[in-house]
Amino acid sequence: MNYRIILYVLGNVLKVEALAMVLPLVCSLMYKEFDCVFVFIICILLCLICGVLLSFKQPQKREIYAKEGFVTAALSWIIISIFGSIPFIISGYIPNFIDALFETASGFTTTGASILEKVEYLPKGILFWRSFTHWIGGMGVLVFLLAILPASGGSNVYLMRAESPGPSVSKLVPRLRETARILYGIYIFITVILTLLLLIGKLDLFEALVTTFETVGTGGFAVRNSSAEGYSSYVQIVINIFMLLCGVDFTAYYLIIMKKGKLALKSDEIKTYFLIYLTATILITINCIGIYPSIFDTIKHSSFQVASIMTTTGFTTTDFNVWPSFSKTIIVLLMFIGACAGSTGGGIKVSRIIIALKSIIKEIKISSHPRNIEKVTINKRVVEHETLRAINVYFISYIAIFTISLLIISLDNLDFTTNFTAVAATMNNIGPGLSEVGPSANYSIYSPLSTFVLTIDMLIGRLEIFPFLVLCSPYAWKK
Amino acid sequence: MNYRIILYVLGNVLKVEALAMVLPLVCSLMYKEFDCVFVFIICILLCLICGVLLSFKQPQKREIYAKEGFVTAALSWIIISIFGSIPFIISGYIPNFIDALFETASGFTTTGASILEKVEYLPKGILFWRSFTHWIGGMGVLVFLLAILPASGGSNVYLMRAESPGPSVSKLVPRLRETARILYGIYIFITVILTLLLLIGKLDLFEALVTTFETVGTGGFAVRNSSAEGYSSYVQIVINIFMLLCGVDFTAYYLIIMKKGKLALKSDEIKTYFLIYLTATILITINCIGIYPSIFDTIKHSSFQVASIMTTTGFTTTDFNVWPSFSKTIIVLLMFIGACAGSTGGGIKVSRIIIALKSIIKEIKISSHPRNIEKVTINKRVVEHETLRAINVYFISYIAIFTISLLIISLDNLDFTTNFTAVAATMNNIGPGLSEVGPSANYSIYSPLSTFVLTIDMLIGRLEIFPFLVLCSPYAWKK
Repeated sequence: MNYRIILYVLGNVLKVEALAMVLPLVCSLMYKEFDCVFVFIICILLCLICGVLLSFKQPQKREIYAKEGFVTAALSWIIISIFGSIPFIISGYIPNFIDALFETASGFTTTGASILEKVEYLPKGILFWRSFTHWIGGMGVLVFLLAILPASGGSNVYLMRAESPGPSVSKLVPRLRETARILYGIYIFITVILTLLLLIGKLDLFEALVTTFETVGTGGFAVRNSSAEGYSSYVQIVINIFMLLCGVDFTAYYLIIMKKGKLALKSDEIKTYFLIYLTATILITINCIGIYPSIFDTIKHSSFQVASIMTTTGFTTTDFNVWPSFSKTIIVLLMFIGACAGSTGGGIKVSRIIIALKSIIKEIKISSHPRNIEKVTINKRVVEHETLRAINVYFISYIAIFTISLLIISLDNLDFTTNFTAVAATMNNIGPGLSEVGPSANYSIYSPLSTFVLTIDMLIGRLEIFPFLVLCSPYAWKK
Repeated sequence: MNYRIILYVLGNVLKVEALAMVLPLVCSLMYKEFDCVFVFIICILLCLICGVLLSFKQPQKREIYAKEGFVTAALSWIIISIFGSIPFIISGYIPNFIDALFETASGFTTTGASILEKVEYLPKGILFWRSFTHWIGGMGVLVFLLAILPASGGSNVYLMRAESPGPSVSKLVPRLRETARILYGIYIFITVILTLLLLIGKLDLFEALVTTFETVGTGGFAVRNSSAEGYSSYVQIVINIFMLLCGVDFTAYYLIIMKKGKLALKSDEIKTYFLIYLTATILITINCIGIYPSIFDTIKHSSFQVASIMTTTGFTTTDFNVWPSFSKTIIVLLMFIGACAGSTGGGIKVSRIIIALKSIIKEIKISSHPRNIEKVTINKRVVEHETLRAINVYFISYIAIFTISLLIISLDNLDFTTNFTAVAATMNNIGPGLSEVGPSANYSIYSPLSTFVLTIDMLIGRLEIFPFLVLCSPYAWKK
């Protein structure tokens, strides 16, 4: 294990976090929240000092192999969550460390689950930081690092692979640094457009900005207790569209920029993603007829909730906990499916589902015609054996971790639906679940142990399990 | 597709069913239930006539390949369930076809879920048939057929493979027919011993026999509304032990007969099976302290329920629906794990779980040390690539079918816990679930559509999915 390079990257990650905290600092200054200004100055200094100390000594060997990539990714996300929670703790708004860690991890992993019962009384600076963690976590902190770090001779592809969502990482251009820059470029462009559209919708600059961070990062923290329920239909529809857009593989936008938009439309994953969205919206609309005053409202609410859960954002315009069982079951299933690979959304990812289902068909074909050679394809390209194996292991470890988490949190003696959807909503980085963790509730009902387990689940979910398995495995640390 | 051989086997399966119905006929005669005698005579004639018609023409080609094996197994189980439901229908005790089919499939698949609100007022002959279906389904009707059919030149291993539970079928001896005979020999021996032990426990012959069928088949229909709650501690402990024994791979008993008992004890699956049983029992006992009058009662109830759910029998001595959430979650997890491969129990099977978990470790090792060659082993033997692939496909299709079933039955607007555990309890062939399908409830709350879906789930679960996928796939029927 190349310890030096791991520490070096971690140090740089902390420097990025210090940089990120400048924005909430500015926000606090503008709103004259001097307590918060003080808090953020301390936190920035803390991140900087630790960052410089960790990355002081340049590593001699700059190679990052698979295991270093996984370990670095896992540790980076743990460290940004720990340091990111300090503003909540020293400001006194979330004095308990476990709770603050939950809230911060929920931010960075773009989960949006909260232990706060009321958010509206928090100072603007703290709220800004809370929402901004979604924005950073959405595209990824290591991807950001790759975009700004001087191009090194080392192979950083394992870093990107460990952090990027989906079964395989697609390099847009041969150079990784360029790929990272293009991705962040697109991300910033979408952020600016959405902010402008929300300003047009008469949100003030602060609310427009934080809502944008929460939407494009597919996070879903809200700055109102009622989530997106109080917004105008215009704002709700704009958010709905942008949630959907941020759940799409960002490669598609690069293809559009390169005037190869037709290629993006041919993607099996993107087609399936919109097909699932439409089907779920139609089914829920039909199932919920009569609940809302007009058919327009029914469509609006069902479309918003489907987009929100599918893209794992977690915003709500209505409490889906009161929907009929069929609609609620669709919501639970969407929690697991998630968004596209290479998007800012979480969950299992549409491409993994497609490949998994295609492997069933392959097996049926093989047993019907044993002499034929069958391959699983996606976008007309054969899925490599390694990828297939990784997907299978992903599913199995997903189930294993889900199971263990469910068992531990059930010690709190809450009902099965609450526990099941709490694990689903955190591991898939969504936010609200059903029953006692439904849209109108929060996660403060859980004990510190359960809160900690759910925090780990959010991190495991965001990094798609494997980095954490490697981090915790004795095999990776053996010489 | 070799249609002729499929019809030939189906015909013989119906003849076996006619033979099986002789026992409840005798029972009805003994209890002077002449209505039932009449019912069974009609049913036997019906099975015989259809059986003879189907198998009248001997097939020229006797080869059964993979796809014929799967299709035959699926159709055999459908046909025995349909014909087996006729006694319930024409006797008038379950007049509705969908309900009668559910009850019969629940019997043959050794699920033990019932739509009957009260069983005690049913005539003895009908109750006998209901319980006897467990016994037939436990070891399998095709295995029975292989044991009695004249040895043919064809390769019947695909038939056995399609029906036997577990990721791979182990032939005890080179000749398949001998293997089938040994298995049934052991099965009958265990049946006789248990019947005697229950007679010693002061059950009358009828109740001893039907309880034995329900136990050794790991079925769990009961002839009392209170399931096993009213029995003496002696009877409960005897049933507990025999449920556990019948959840063990029957190969172990063959090894013991051959004086190679030590080999059986070395089996990874059997060791893990007992380890899970002990761990779950201890955890539930600790969690349930204070609920029952004495620690002996707590251990007795927790051991019984764990054994019952793990072996997918479904007998209960207490209503676990009132247990704390942690214990209920353990019960739900045990539902999925199930018993050993090659036993009469259902569920995913311990060996599949072991292999799946080992494949995670393999993947971690590979990514830590990419140059090493890693293999998944069980019982110190390398698991073949084909088996690994089949297990992965099994898991994926398991989740897919689970999901679709959950979605359809949620149309009935029952709560999530009820629906989730109803699918779990039928697909894993257990019987009782939680909430509204808990041990003190039954499945009559579901609509005909849901009842039908759950019936299919029981059959799919018993044959471990693949036969039904092949049956429903257009690829299998294409020339």
